[in-house]
Amino acid sequence: MSRRVVALAGGVGGAKLVHGLANLLGENLSVIVNTGDDFEHVGLSICPDIDTVLYTLGGIANRVQGWGIEGESWSFLDQLGRLGGPDWFRLGDRDLAMHVLRTMGLARGERLTDIVARFAARLGIEAVILPMADEPVRTMVLSGDGELPFQDYFVRLRCEIPVSGFRLAGIEMASVTPEILTTMRHPDLDTILICPSNPFVSVEPILSVPGMRTELERVPVIAISPIIAGQAVKGPAAKMMRELDMPATAFAVAKRYAGLADGFVIDHADAEQAPAIEALGMKVLVTDALMRDEADRIRLARETLDFARSLRHG
Amino acid sequence: MSRRVVALAGGVGGAKLVHGLANLLGENLSVIVNTGDDFEHVGLSICPDIDTVLYTLGGIANRVQGWGIEGESWSFLDQLGRLGGPDWFRLGDRDLAMHVLRTMGLARGERLTDIVARFAARLGIEAVILPMADEPVRTMVLSGDGELPFQDYFVRLRCEIPVSGFRLAGIEMASVTPEILTTMRHPDLDTILICPSNPFVSVEPILSVPGMRTELERVPVIAISPIIAGQAVKGPAAKMMRELDMPATAFAVAKRYAGLADGFVIDHADAEQAPAIEALGMKVLVTDALMRDEADRIRLARETLDFARSLRHG
Repeated sequence: MSRRVVALAGGVGGAKLVHGLANLLGENLSVIVNTGDDFEHVGLSICPDIDTVLYTLGGIANRVQGWGIEGESWSFLDQLGRLGGPDWFRLGDRDLAMHVLRTMGLARGERLTDIVARFAARLGIEAVILPMADEPVRTMVLSGDGELPFQDYFVRLRCEIPVSGFRLAGIEMASVTPEILTTMRHPDLDTILICPSNPFVSVEPILSVPGMRTELERVPVIAISPIIAGQAVKGPAAKMMRELDMPATAFAVAKRYAGLADGFVIDHADAEQAPAIEALGMKVLVTDALMRDEADRIRLARETLDFARSLRHG
Repeated sequence: MSRRVVALAGGVGGAKLVHGLANLLGENLSVIVNTGDDFEHVGLSICPDIDTVLYTLGGIANRVQGWGIEGESWSFLDQLGRLGGPDWFRLGDRDLAMHVLRTMGLARGERLTDIVARFAARLGIEAVILPMADEPVRTMVLSGDGELPFQDYFVRLRCEIPVSGFRLAGIEMASVTPEILTTMRHPDLDTILICPSNPFVSVEPILSVPGMRTELERVPVIAISPIIAGQAVKGPAAKMMRELDMPATAFAVAKRYAGLADGFVIDHADAEQAPAIEALGMKVLVTDALMRDEADRIRLARETLDFARSLRHG
């Protein structure tokens, strides 16, 4: 059967579910990946979320840290530091190959979409990996009176400053790519999933690409909560919610997706929030939403797809 | 005492003598390094001769292969090949740090001279390392009806095609840097050495920088033969000489430097060529010109400096 699914994903948390989905769907899965935390570092174009998805689906991701390549070495970074270069962003030796080839491709005028497709083919990935846009969009983190680029906040400052908001620099110049349009309008597309990624810095940039939201109106949209029992499984989502005067709850995430998502997946730990979420106009699936290992990734992917089917037929 | 010496050098062979000289002279040594075999590869600016000199004087060179860094790792190159990138030029993981920082500096508009000075300081090098020019000069190897960039000839094709000549692309736009002028006109400068480097692709580019030759007329110039017993110690010099219809001899090299060099250093194996070389108007030092180890480097450097002194006072 040719049931096609689109997943919107950021980095680590999103990539785990994407991995489960890819196991079930193969080439019938398309992943639209956040590029808002891309940045330029030591002259190289770096796309952390795309790379995490590529490494995860290519079977070479470091499972323990969630980002980067398994068995990575760090000779480059060591020498970079010795030569006085900036070594706060941990560029691994293998990882660097992707950045160098991408930078070279972009300098030649190639589209990020085409570069990523080539990497995916080389890594033997069946799923279609699509950057949310080919134009650069850069998430700026607002804090106090200033703002700073996302990776400065996330990696260099380890999220240690309070955030008061976000600005997506360049978003007004970005556009939905032809490949995303084709994917979103495919007659066999039957579900769009919003992965358990950070709602502010992973999902929001994707949804903010001009023209993207209208592409989400044709088929059921299911979001999976990145918040379990008041905590983000990974990353600063819960901290950001508190700093933005929101409760760090699955319900608060669901509220952001009200009017967009038809279904919402939460963990057993948050079961008591189900009625409130349903009151937002969504169906709710309560399950084990924590992905500890590969079996969990596949199980949650399967449950989410079954849930989506029940929405269409129920 | 503040006896100052300038050495003109290419890569591996030149770097060995430079290493010996640096041991004796420290900060009183300035090295003008060939940039004609620099090239752009996978978007990076690579300066093989400068890096060989930096790694050698920084004490981190791979002594066995002559280029690159001791204990280098190759994860980047392995992954680059896996992603379909060009892996014929062996970029090591540590080596890459220099290329990335240099490319970044040049993109910012910094001069190569300033970038190299920073690397040298970081590597604890006392000698002054000066690129022959800040403008790009690229040695093109002529063969048959065509020409190709030096690294394509040297590394990718392993020197397997016959050469019919060379073209120094960009040389007319190059100029002697202020740092080279200051060095060449220093009142304490008393000797200029032409290292045992390839006369065509290492020394000729340096001598061809507009304005360079007149800077070599103030103090005695001593050249050290890169040819011993009809063979190049390293690299394609002897092969090139035969293809260019020259005998592969120390004398043929000396002939190229006639009118420029005041002294010429040859190996015992070539002692019978001494009278012919003297007939070119040069004094000749016959010694053990092969540098097998660090002791040889220092010995040959000392003998060459003593020879230079004898020319001045003799």
